[in-house]
Amino acid sequence: MNVRAELRRLIALEGSASSSGLVRVDSFLNHQVNPQVMTAIGAEFARCFRHHSPTKVLTAEASGICPALTTAIALDVPMVYAKKHKPMQIEGPTLRRQVFSPTKGMVFDIVVSENYLKPGERILIIDDFLAGGKTVGALLEISQLAGAKVVGLGFVVEKTFSGGRAQLGNYPIESLVRIASLEGGIQFAD
Amino acid sequence: MNVRAELRRLIALEGSASSSGLVRVDSFLNHQVNPQVMTAIGAEFARCFRHHSPTKVLTAEASGICPALTTAIALDVPMVYAKKHKPMQIEGPTLRRQVFSPTKGMVFDIVVSENYLKPGERILIIDDFLAGGKTVGALLEISQLAGAKVVGLGFVVEKTFSGGRAQLGNYPIESLVRIASLEGGIQFAD
Repeated sequence: MNVRAELRRLIALEGSASSSGLVRVDSFLNHQVNPQVMTAIGAEFARCFRHHSPTKVLTAEASGICPALTTAIALDVPMVYAKKHKPMQIEGPTLRRQVFSPTKGMVFDIVVSENYLKPGERILIIDDFLAGGKTVGALLEISQLAGAKVVGLGFVVEKTFSGGRAQLGNYPIESLVRIASLEGGIQFAD
Repeated sequence: MNVRAELRRLIALEGSASSSGLVRVDSFLNHQVNPQVMTAIGAEFARCFRHHSPTKVLTAEASGICPALTTAIALDVPMVYAKKHKPMQIEGPTLRRQVFSPTKGMVFDIVVSENYLKPGERILIIDDFLAGGKTVGALLEISQLAGAKVVGLGFVVEKTFSGGRAQLGNYPIESLVRIASLEGGIQFAD
């Protein structure tokens, strides 16, 4: 499967744009999940980033979990998903950053146990969307707090009009699909 | 991999019990994720339930997503994860039930878009834990509301002392590991 072409086809066919600038892809990506597409997403991120020798994949719950897991399976490294608050199950010291989610309309903490992000680890951050870059920014700061090195950032869909990429600094970035505008329907960037 | 034996080994080695009756398995199952173990979990659920011809795997975010996804990949059917409230991304009519989560200490709605659960579908419900059975009970009710048929229930870890199984009615159930007691450490049921 050419997963980049398949994602464009699915977004054009099944995706929709809301008046508030959200892109709905819940028929195959973040509510219902297409298993073949999600496996191909993981294989593509693994192909892009394997030469950076990541030792761990990091994402945030909930919609980052699927692409992060298939990527981790393809790379055969552990995956860690940040929690969106501190559940009682996380014991001991935690790394945390506060972020505002435009899709949920609220502020929350994203939290990782210090047990699972260590100095010297090589972190590949994966998420379903890059929009304003707040969630990935928090994951970058958490990785830095842990003393780990971020070796790459992968996004299934980037909304280039939200400007997140400019906030992220000088990391290798791969977006499988780039959306440039929602004016008059979903417009791809390239 | 004999995944049932491997899960017992990992729980004995890395798991811990809290005074409130929670079992922490966040080093490999629901915070950090072991990709080989999670793949084997999916293969085992697929082996157990394939003869019931499920057309869809259903779970609830966030910690059900990983085992549900690897199961869906192994069966090559779509996976749907219920949201824990109504995010703005879900358009149109929804199926919802209120549940209390003992691990989060709060009540929330679990919500599925009517677009992704249809009459006549054959649903395999997968979750990481079976404890009191509240979450899976809500997923059963949501499936019933949709007119779908539940063909099986699969749990990575069952806490038999929480009594959830008796609440679930007459479905095929598979738990990969059963914990009978947390008195004096984690005690397996069989």
